Amino acid sequence: MASSPDLYAFVRGEIVPLTRAYLHVSDLAIQRGYGIFDYFRVHETQPLFVEDHLDRFYESARLMQLAVPLTRAALHEVILELARRNDLALSGIKILLTGGYSPDGYTPTPGEASLVLIQQPLTMVEQAAVDCGIRIMSHEYVREVAQAKTINYTMGIRLIQRLQETGLDDVLYHQQSVVSEFPRSNFFIVRQDNTVVTPAENVLFGITRKKVLQLASRRYPVEEGPVTLMDIWQAKEAFLTNTTKRLLPVVELDGKPIGTGKPGEVTLALLAAFQELEQAELHVVRL
Amino acid sequence: MASSPDLYAFVRGEIVPLTRAYLHVSDLAIQRGYGIFDYFRVHETQPLFVEDHLDRFYESARLMQLAVPLTRAALHEVILELARRNDLALSGIKILLTGGYSPDGYTPTPGEASLVLIQQPLTMVEQAAVDCGIRIMSHEYVREVAQAKTINYTMGIRLIQRLQETGLDDVLYHQQSVVSEFPRSNFFIVRQDNTVVTPAENVLFGITRKKVLQLASRRYPVEEGPVTLMDIWQAKEAFLTNTTKRLLPVVELDGKPIGTGKPGEVTLALLAAFQELEQAELHVVRL
Repeated sequence: MASSPDLYAFVRGEIVPLTRAYLHVSDLAIQRGYGIFDYFRVHETQPLFVEDHLDRFYESARLMQLAVPLTRAALHEVILELARRNDLALSGIKILLTGGYSPDGYTPTPGEASLVLIQQPLTMVEQAAVDCGIRIMSHEYVREVAQAKTINYTMGIRLIQRLQETGLDDVLYHQQSVVSEFPRSNFFIVRQDNTVVTPAENVLFGITRKKVLQLASRRYPVEEGPVTLMDIWQAKEAFLTNTTKRLLPVVELDGKPIGTGKPGEVTLALLAAFQELEQAELHVVRL
Repeated sequence: MASSPDLYAFVRGEIVPLTRAYLHVSDLAIQRGYGIFDYFRVHETQPLFVEDHLDRFYESARLMQLAVPLTRAALHEVILELARRNDLALSGIKILLTGGYSPDGYTPTPGEASLVLIQQPLTMVEQAAVDCGIRIMSHEYVREVAQAKTINYTMGIRLIQRLQETGLDDVLYHQQSVVSEFPRSNFFIVRQDNTVVTPAENVLFGITRKKVLQLASRRYPVEEGPVTLMDIWQAKEAFLTNTTKRLLPVVELDGKPIGTGKPGEVTLALLAAFQELEQAELHVVRL
């Protein structure tokens, strides 16, 4: 972020240069890791699926007992204003809401939540990752308050070093072999009969996940329910979904191939359908 | 904190007025709730049990793969310098180490951890709380990376509202009836035979806990091991320990009295012994 000196951010009611976007150390994000966020892509000045992201942002705030200091309409206006000022070709906006400045460093002060918006240039996943698929490991862990997009990524960040050491691409969380999600992505398998399945318990409900479920249900059987590690090795295909990666084929888990060990046709068909949906969405908004 | 305009803090290498103690929003505490801390009392300019707290601080940093940007001797010097500048009668110093400024908001940059020290006036627990004891509820939860003093207090803060609604004083975490700790304190029981017992699994090893175990072992049988909810109701006494409360009697759990429902003699004897130890420690350091 320090390398983007011309960008603007929104901090506690004001648009300021990103280089001057600071929070006081009494903020409960700093003192107690207490906060939620959301993140979406912006194409030129058009935020993608912004209504879905705002739905989720307000729901995360509710689950964490945080009051968003702006109405939804006013927040939407700040998003558009920031996008206009920063004027980036392809970017991501993060909306962050923390417990705010707290005199005792523990108790939230009503009405004091800190709302911060940051916009940064975005590079989408490389085509090579789609062509080759990614290799992952499993790790036993369940996120706290999984339905809320909290800022708690303690486990994900602690695992970065292990990924670097092993050369693997991501970590899939499971509890007693029942899988949930990646630190920042949802997970899907495609069974041998082309049923598209994604976990529904202990997961954050991703916006890409939601769109893929809708698209998949038009052409395949779809299930939201338990997926075990064994189910994955018996599956025909697997993929992850998130805002910056869209759909990314997963071809290996814990050193064992999934399906043929190559990106599968259902995955690639859903990726193509998702990209069409994106284009349609951006086109509609543009009119 | 905003109400203490004359105090100084230490932020990323510099002593600055507390009112100007800010971190950039790219800091991994703000982005991802990633950080650790420690907290100790300071009497005039004498930090209490500071070597124990520094041991734990460096151990928390190690467990969370964070490099403290100062040697232990240099950090100790910063603590003393801050205490001299702020010159408070009774205070607490918090040493906070976060994942630091991160260009992508996720990956720690080696050597970029943010070290922050904040000192604030401290009011010790009121005598009435010692005289009456406190009433607590149980809640099923285990802290992540419990041996590290991380900044993740998501659950503790979410439970503040329930405590306010019920008028209870604190929440004791348990997993399937095996208790661990409070959000910010350790827990002890005294069995009918005067054995002093404290959980040893899934707890942060408090400095007051350590001192109380040492003091207790001189006069009572002592155990570090499993404590169940049932053990608590069958106990003679119970108490919590932490830096600002020392020992505080716990007289009721989930609406049912513990022992006689009044502060017990072993608890009060240990509190007196702990206060003597404090005085001796401050006296020795002063010489």
